[in-house]
Amino acid sequence: MKLDVIRIAQAIFTVKDLAASKEFYVDLLGMNVLHEQGDALYLRGVEDREWTLKLEQCKGSEEARVRHLGYRVRDEQTLDALVNLAETQGLPHRWEEELDRPRMLRLQDPFGIPVAFYHDVKTYPWLLQEYHQHRGPGLQRVDHCNVRVPDVKATMDWYMDELGFRLSEYTVDEQDQWWAAWIQRRGGVHDFALTNGAGPCLHHWAYWMPDALSIIKTCDILAGARQPERIERGPGRHGVSNAFFLYIRDPDGHRIELYTSDYITVDPDFVPIKWLRDDPRRQTLWGAKTPRSWFEEASPMEAFEGGVQQPKEGKLTGIPAHVI
Amino acid sequence: MKLDVIRIAQAIFTVKDLAASKEFYVDLLGMNVLHEQGDALYLRGVEDREWTLKLEQCKGSEEARVRHLGYRVRDEQTLDALVNLAETQGLPHRWEEELDRPRMLRLQDPFGIPVAFYHDVKTYPWLLQEYHQHRGPGLQRVDHCNVRVPDVKATMDWYMDELGFRLSEYTVDEQDQWWAAWIQRRGGVHDFALTNGAGPCLHHWAYWMPDALSIIKTCDILAGARQPERIERGPGRHGVSNAFFLYIRDPDGHRIELYTSDYITVDPDFVPIKWLRDDPRRQTLWGAKTPRSWFEEASPMEAFEGGVQQPKEGKLTGIPAHVI
Amino acid sequence: MKLDVIRIAQAIFTVKDLAASKEFYVDLLGMNVLHEQGDALYLRGVEDREWTLKLEQCKGSEEARVRHLGYRVRDEQTLDALVNLAETQGLPHRWEEELDRPRMLRLQDPFGIPVAFYHDVKTYPWLLQEYHQHRGPGLQRVDHCNVRVPDVKATMDWYMDELGFRLSEYTVDEQDQWWAAWIQRRGGVHDFALTNGAGPCLHHWAYWMPDALSIIKTCDILAGARQPERIERGPGRHGVSNAFFLYIRDPDGHRIELYTSDYITVDPDFVPIKWLRDDPRRQTLWGAKTPRSWFEEASPMEAFEGGVQQPKEGKLTGIPAHVI
Amino acid sequence: MKLDVIRIAQAIFTVKDLAASKEFYVDLLGMNVLHEQGDALYLRGVEDREWTLKLEQCKGSEEARVRHLGYRVRDEQTLDALVNLAETQGLPHRWEEELDRPRMLRLQDPFGIPVAFYHDVKTYPWLLQEYHQHRGPGLQRVDHCNVRVPDVKATMDWYMDELGFRLSEYTVDEQDQWWAAWIQRRGGVHDFALTNGAGPCLHHWAYWMPDALSIIKTCDILAGARQPERIERGPGRHGVSNAFFLYIRDPDGHRIELYTSDYITVDPDFVPIKWLRDDPRRQTLWGAKTPRSWFEEASPMEAFEGGVQQPKEGKLTGIPAHVI
Repeated sequence: MKLDVIRIAQAIFTVKDLAASKEFYVDLLGMNVLHEQGDALYLRGVEDREWTLKLEQCKGSEEARVRHLGYRVRDEQTLDALVNLAETQGLPHRWEEELDRPRMLRLQDPFGIPVAFYHDVKTYPWLLQEYHQHRGPGLQRVDHCNVRVPDVKATMDWYMDELGFRLSEYTVDEQDQWWAAWIQRRGGVHDFALTNGAGPCLHHWAYWMPDALSIIKTCDILAGARQPERIERGPGRHGVSNAFFLYIRDPDGHRIELYTSDYITVDPDFVPIKWLRDDPRRQTLWGAKTPRSWFEEASPMEAFEGGVQQPKEGKLTGIPAHVI
Repeated sequence: MKLDVIRIAQAIFTVKDLAASKEFYVDLLGMNVLHEQGDALYLRGVEDREWTLKLEQCKGSEEARVRHLGYRVRDEQTLDALVNLAETQGLPHRWEEELDRPRMLRLQDPFGIPVAFYHDVKTYPWLLQEYHQHRGPGLQRVDHCNVRVPDVKATMDWYMDELGFRLSEYTVDEQDQWWAAWIQRRGGVHDFALTNGAGPCLHHWAYWMPDALSIIKTCDILAGARQPERIERGPGRHGVSNAFFLYIRDPDGHRIELYTSDYITVDPDFVPIKWLRDDPRRQTLWGAKTPRSWFEEASPMEAFEGGVQQPKEGKLTGIPAHVI
Repeated sequence: MKLDVIRIAQAIFTVKDLAASKEFYVDLLGMNVLHEQGDALYLRGVEDREWTLKLEQCKGSEEARVRHLGYRVRDEQTLDALVNLAETQGLPHRWEEELDRPRMLRLQDPFGIPVAFYHDVKTYPWLLQEYHQHRGPGLQRVDHCNVRVPDVKATMDWYMDELGFRLSEYTVDEQDQWWAAWIQRRGGVHDFALTNGAGPCLHHWAYWMPDALSIIKTCDILAGARQPERIERGPGRHGVSNAFFLYIRDPDGHRIELYTSDYITVDPDFVPIKWLRDDPRRQTLWGAKTPRSWFEEASPMEAFEGGVQQPKEGKLTGIPAHVI
Repeated sequence: MKLDVIRIAQAIFTVKDLAASKEFYVDLLGMNVLHEQGDALYLRGVEDREWTLKLEQCKGSEEARVRHLGYRVRDEQTLDALVNLAETQGLPHRWEEELDRPRMLRLQDPFGIPVAFYHDVKTYPWLLQEYHQHRGPGLQRVDHCNVRVPDVKATMDWYMDELGFRLSEYTVDEQDQWWAAWIQRRGGVHDFALTNGAGPCLHHWAYWMPDALSIIKTCDILAGARQPERIERGPGRHGVSNAFFLYIRDPDGHRIELYTSDYITVDPDFVPIKWLRDDPRRQTLWGAKTPRSWFEEASPMEAFEGGVQQPKEGKLTGIPAHVI
């Protein structure tokens, strides 16, 4: 049974105050509201033909979390193959139905990450060329997710061996142990990145931007709104991926990356790029140090049976040297 | 009596359909509405601390026109000196009161151009750093005006001799006759440009833009709104001024230039730059040809006693060679 | 036998004056010289790990031409499958050896286009992050080619049916006949585009650029070098592909497109976008008209047995309405 | 006697290793070498018509320093007026001759800053439109200088009262004492800025850039050259001035600012903008903290009789809160 994952495609976050989140994502970042229903908001970028980020009001006093990360797959057979995989490996799984996604398989991977897969989806006309309707910096399309996990190598191996992901870049520490990995299905640098640390926790969720100036504009907009504290890191250029980037935090602390201008990885003999953890050019090509919060804070993930996954400590200790 | 003109500062256009103009200037170009009163709209860019463009509903079946071009002056003494000049030279003139400008001198220059001068003005907090309130491409501040006149040299001489303008660039034809001139008070390339042709007519009114990408975004927005026909010329880089530019036409045909990135002219020994009219790099450094409408169409100007100035033919005939 | 074409990867142009071509591609466009041997120059963009454009001095008084367009394939089995295809369909083919490509299959497709395929290639460290070595506008990587052919639909069908290309956008005339098609293997908008007209002739060869400003910089550089006539069309934004673009002509008239910022097409239910030939927003979203030369001029292609392919007339007559 | 200072115009730095400085300023930053004579290099930006930065090899084991900051003045009468001022106030002064500047008045202001003034200068054709000759990020023109002084208010008052500078922005501490001031002659935000601290020492010397992307490119180039440590602060947007900026350090630690996109200050009723020292948006509008070195390190200045000025402690103690 052939299993063909197309790309990272959606995430669901819970938030403590949906109105505050709406102000952040819609009024400031300019994301498009595809649906607004009861206590949920379905958002997308201007190139997205479907919703790619759903925000749900937290129930009661629950802490904000990530309900799942979702991948689009090529066909229904892939879903069947995934069920088979889940059964074989004893992974918790169930069918769920979501708005615009009539048949979605949710499973918990062997590392505790809640993952959803779907093929069938209701699409909508994109807004890419409806430039008069763009607002704010113009987030374009979902690009990738990054998860903090206790064992980067084991997690990466599973995604590569079972789901066919390919490695584009990776980071090792001084003992040549895997600190981080960037893996992809779509021919870009990554759909999914893994970083060593307590987890599983979502490190960040990323949107592709039209250009570096739209990222700079995001900073200006947040500063104009007197919310400069939402800017956590950047703008800058990554050593890994070569992308121009910015990390911002939403009102619940969920971390969003705005990202543009990496490279393609379609060649069959593409050689993954190796970085040393403490190379000053790795995190930011310009040598800029990373704030400690970037390593220490991440969003909890929902456990399969409800509640939040209790993070396990990272296999490697310490954080990179270029930190402030 | 010392006469000190600071800079070009405002224009008043009449328009046939104020709602259509509002859609163009506010909804698409993102200009800020400082006042909206009865049948007039007072607009500004994000750096402007006062209104810089007033749009008035045309009365009855009047054709759309330019009521005046206005300059800010250093002090009330300059206004007195201008009255003196008008009396000495027999120029029609009168005091007018405008919203936020309690004392404005309007006169008609010797070439029939309606010009206003004011010192006292009510200012408002700018929006420059209120980035979350910027809309569309973000027009920044009034930059210059360009008037088509029958006799470029005579008009230029009067502004330089009487009002202290300085020459930055000029164009001559093959017989070394003056075809166009760019003159300034503010230390940039121009507050006022003069081009040979039937006039006086307003050729265009220009706003400074934050960068070239904001100009490109203007094209995208007009295209998104299914109004690509409002884009008349550009984007491109001028040979004259070296600015990156775009010319668009409002619903009444008034021509707006979006302009950025010229140079400074403050040095006392600055040598004006001379261009030949048919140098392919003059109009657009990249050699792009100019649409014929750009030479043939311009906005009528209001006569001192009401009605519209009847344009006189340009002293020089023909138009530049690089036309489509 | 599975046949897996990865992406468009190389072209070979012959040129009348290699020194003049070097000035254009290297001194002005800033392409990197990977090899220079006798009468040939092997060029690449900063992301390319192999040469992607080879320029050969024309022999004697031969006219400049395109020797072939080359695709990278996944494996040697694909080459075998292609030989099989060529034998089955009676397509002229032979093995050739090129610098860095020890085993390259050259064939002539059923429409007379000279196409090469290779898997094995010697690669070199890229220059993507060697920013201090970038020159000029910084061409990044080969993006696509565009060929003018007499029968767009038949040509497209062959590439889709036999080589597995997928359709992303297409243009029809008023009778719903195919005027142009954009087809891809790599998950972007196109590796290969087809336009109706006398052919087969190479319409253009395109490089991906880091951003719109690097394209604008190309115009400035050509203007600075007093070669504005090398700029044929743009800069602008395409309706088709949504890319920001510029077309320039090299000293032999070979047309190069600089291209950035399109979208991804990886979804299995991606619906190809249909355009009407005379939609003013199709060619340039901003409605800009296209110079006639863009439709009428293209590079001859080499015949399999040497000499130049005699172009056949396009199936459809006329050219789009938005022409100057 | 009227005294008319036009603008900040030149600086002379001494450097320990002229070859290393040349690599930094010419090979990486792309500055144009107007003259190279013996142990000195005369540099300019692409809009500069004269040299604006001279680098001199340090004599023997001297530490690197700033020999003077130089202003262009309107006329020789201004120089005479300055001599008169120097005599009246007992300021050390002498006539010097520099390459391309036949008559230059050097004086030491009451605060120990070495300042030069000249009117007559030999100019050269600019390179603004010679885009094919631009290299690297394309520094455009000298913009301003910033000096760390013990008494900001007293120093500012002297420049405003005696030399006619005007205030555009200023910073006070919690006791409303002057921490920093930005003063100008040219109609922009500043020719000269003053910051509280041990001095007089040059804090930085700044060039205007064509746009934000050219500043980002500077970071990429320094990173490409494996010199990310030359990037000290930014890129970012200043709260003060609203400019997009970057601070880099040359091989001797002289600090260069690359700066673009501020605003104009020509209006007679321009109200200086007041900032609180610890407002997080003051230094960088986005709230980014400033590295401690930015407050603690600065270039020594040459004393009138030779040697280096011994800095006096700043009147106010402490540094702003937003520091890392």
